[in-house]
Amino acid sequence: MFEKVLIANRGEIAVRVVRACRELGVRTVAVYSDADADSLPVRLADEAVRIGPSRPAASYLHIPNIIGAALKAGADAIHPGYGFLSEDPYFAEICADHDITFIGPPPEVMESVGDKSVARRLMEGAGLPLLPGTVEPVHTFEQARAIADEIGYPVVIKATAGGGGRGITVVHRSDELRHAYQSTRATAQAVFGNRDVYVERYLERARHVEVQILCDAHGGAVHLGERDCSVQRRHQKLIEESPSPAVDGRLRAEIGESALAGARAAGYRGAGTMEFLLDDDGRFWFMEMNARIQVEHPVTELVTGIDLIAEQIRVAAGSPLSIKQEDVVVAGHAVECRINAEDPARDFAPAPGRLEVFQLPGGPWTRVDTYCRSGDVIPPFYDSMIAKLIVWGPDRRAALDRLARALDEFEVSGPGLHTTKDFHRRVVEHPTFRSGDVRTDFLIHNTP
Amino acid sequence: MFEKVLIANRGEIAVRVVRACRELGVRTVAVYSDADADSLPVRLADEAVRIGPSRPAASYLHIPNIIGAALKAGADAIHPGYGFLSEDPYFAEICADHDITFIGPPPEVMESVGDKSVARRLMEGAGLPLLPGTVEPVHTFEQARAIADEIGYPVVIKATAGGGGRGITVVHRSDELRHAYQSTRATAQAVFGNRDVYVERYLERARHVEVQILCDAHGGAVHLGERDCSVQRRHQKLIEESPSPAVDGRLRAEIGESALAGARAAGYRGAGTMEFLLDDDGRFWFMEMNARIQVEHPVTELVTGIDLIAEQIRVAAGSPLSIKQEDVVVAGHAVECRINAEDPARDFAPAPGRLEVFQLPGGPWTRVDTYCRSGDVIPPFYDSMIAKLIVWGPDRRAALDRLARALDEFEVSGPGLHTTKDFHRRVVEHPTFRSGDVRTDFLIHNTP
Repeated sequence: MFEKVLIANRGEIAVRVVRACRELGVRTVAVYSDADADSLPVRLADEAVRIGPSRPAASYLHIPNIIGAALKAGADAIHPGYGFLSEDPYFAEICADHDITFIGPPPEVMESVGDKSVARRLMEGAGLPLLPGTVEPVHTFEQARAIADEIGYPVVIKATAGGGGRGITVVHRSDELRHAYQSTRATAQAVFGNRDVYVERYLERARHVEVQILCDAHGGAVHLGERDCSVQRRHQKLIEESPSPAVDGRLRAEIGESALAGARAAGYRGAGTMEFLLDDDGRFWFMEMNARIQVEHPVTELVTGIDLIAEQIRVAAGSPLSIKQEDVVVAGHAVECRINAEDPARDFAPAPGRLEVFQLPGGPWTRVDTYCRSGDVIPPFYDSMIAKLIVWGPDRRAALDRLARALDEFEVSGPGLHTTKDFHRRVVEHPTFRSGDVRTDFLIHNTP
Repeated sequence: MFEKVLIANRGEIAVRVVRACRELGVRTVAVYSDADADSLPVRLADEAVRIGPSRPAASYLHIPNIIGAALKAGADAIHPGYGFLSEDPYFAEICADHDITFIGPPPEVMESVGDKSVARRLMEGAGLPLLPGTVEPVHTFEQARAIADEIGYPVVIKATAGGGGRGITVVHRSDELRHAYQSTRATAQAVFGNRDVYVERYLERARHVEVQILCDAHGGAVHLGERDCSVQRRHQKLIEESPSPAVDGRLRAEIGESALAGARAAGYRGAGTMEFLLDDDGRFWFMEMNARIQVEHPVTELVTGIDLIAEQIRVAAGSPLSIKQEDVVVAGHAVECRINAEDPARDFAPAPGRLEVFQLPGGPWTRVDTYCRSGDVIPPFYDSMIAKLIVWGPDRRAALDRLARALDEFEVSGPGLHTTKDFHRRVVEHPTFRSGDVRTDFLIHNTP
């Protein structure tokens, strides 16, 4: 096992990793920008190192400062969390160059699954079902038009280097294609530094269903059931649950096996997620692979009883998986909602501020993963998620009743601050959501 | 289901019941003494009614005020929590007289299991193993001496009306018997208004193992595995866990069946606990039955996934149990420790004060049941427990590692305030406790 893990991240995921390390008996090093100097992960970790000013580019994205902090603190491993450098194969390579274990898959695996069109080719080769589209980037508008005409509208144009729901444009009619093609390439260049895009058939009435996998370095690999993340707004997940209301045991085994086949084809190691679209006929298509831990991992933890972060760390340290496929049982139902400092009334615009009141809900099967405490000021430099509220119940209805209760109990207010808490409370009562009959277009057609 | 439940209690159990009711869609009425006017249960409940000044006798124990509050609020049921009136058959009768459902067993059952010597006779008749001793109260010192001489020392003298670890005296030598007999009777008269005592063989090297049961009004009855509550100080439980490190599947089934046989013999309904002593040879003896929900019920909830308070309320409303014995699975390991406002350095003297800092631990499988918030002043009128910290893990070691982490994370301080938090942290590291090799004398021979 590692002696000391540096956490190259901030916010709730940094707290989550500190907790897992403590329980494993591993010392922790937090890194922080100026805005986070007094934050909870800094307080909870055994050590903390400043890595720069508040701007992400100068701190959490600045590799030399992070590597420097790891060397200074004598960390033998780095956990990248999600976002920031977690999917940067170059960062993983630099870690290796300094004899620091990057807690994630090997850099070459990150590289191939991180390029969505490479990943499509790889998964096609492994026999996974793909939606009609290109497995190579398209380089001209004429190419894009020919493919769209062939596969039929609607189509979606996606940045091959995309992630986090950005660099995705849905095109419903051929006369929208040129603008969509150009703007997606421009966004891709600006955000990801790579303007390559590809074209794929777009399913309007599909669910987002993803499979959590864990692979060790000894050939061990398990899938841990699915998460349904269909409640999205502009390709950003807002509510996630496990199991999916649309997946039964037979389909779970089938999609899980498919996910593992893909992971094996990629030579995957660590915790990862295979994302699929699931249509109303129970057919599923590979969408992309996320080579990191995800925000929504807790719902899988609560239904399987498996600590994904601890397992991720153990596997990175060379241990074999502590579980076998036949030991994985999906029991009950878990739901997570992301409490963001955003104003739903103003198109979910960021609305950070001071948490004058921040009273968490508690009680049975109610978990809050947060980096905030009463009195904290939410820094405006990073993502707007301030807490994840996750509940478990013996079935979906009980879990949603518990979620409603916990949301009612959650007190969060302060000057200038708005959150998505009340929005989630309305979603929980929405008859379509309650019925489980939700597709990714739910929030396009409904305004809870 | 009930329309509105009044909670005739305070503190964390009042919060727990409010949460369960909310999740069941039942309205709640909190009652409060002056000291609790601004407390969390009052804030969380749908309504709140003042029932008197801070002294328990004038408020939480004052039946007319509680019944008056229920009638005023139009509550159709009363949940008594634990302590206070929860084991008072007279209170249950008064509720019935006012057409209010008492959430607990019928008054006559409370009466018979509440008298320890009646309960002993009852359980003897049901074939449960009893330690050598009397099944009738002893009324003279000579009687007590004759019995003690017959069964051999050490013996224990117990108040027949006792509970909560009070009215229990262990006697190691015959020359201590007279004083013990007299003082136990005096305590019993003072605390329980009934000076009857009985005599029983005392096991020095035993574990306290208790079985959670649930019975409905339709003949349905299940046992939910055991809790090991051997870490005690002066017969007060400090740490509870499930399963017991000393109980395997075979013994669990055996002791569980025994517990159910006893409950059936008593005509039991609702949630209850059968307490046993377990010796090192795997033999167990009935000790007493608790006809109410217990402080330590969450450890059973976390290993079984069953919401005991919700089930208790459903059963009281006439529903059949939602579970069958074959559905009960004890998965993983759960531990609870009681955070009391007491000073371990001063013989655990009550040390309430203002919670200047009260920062709860969080994260995976970490639950805190509390009625306190940062800034609250702990009233000195009631019991000293301010929070229960409960964790779950896939096995005992993982659960204890998680407990250590959560205790480290728990910040509680204020002027004049002391708590048992650091004491628990030391117990968690104690090699004897870690090994699971704990009997009820652990804290007599060890001072963590």
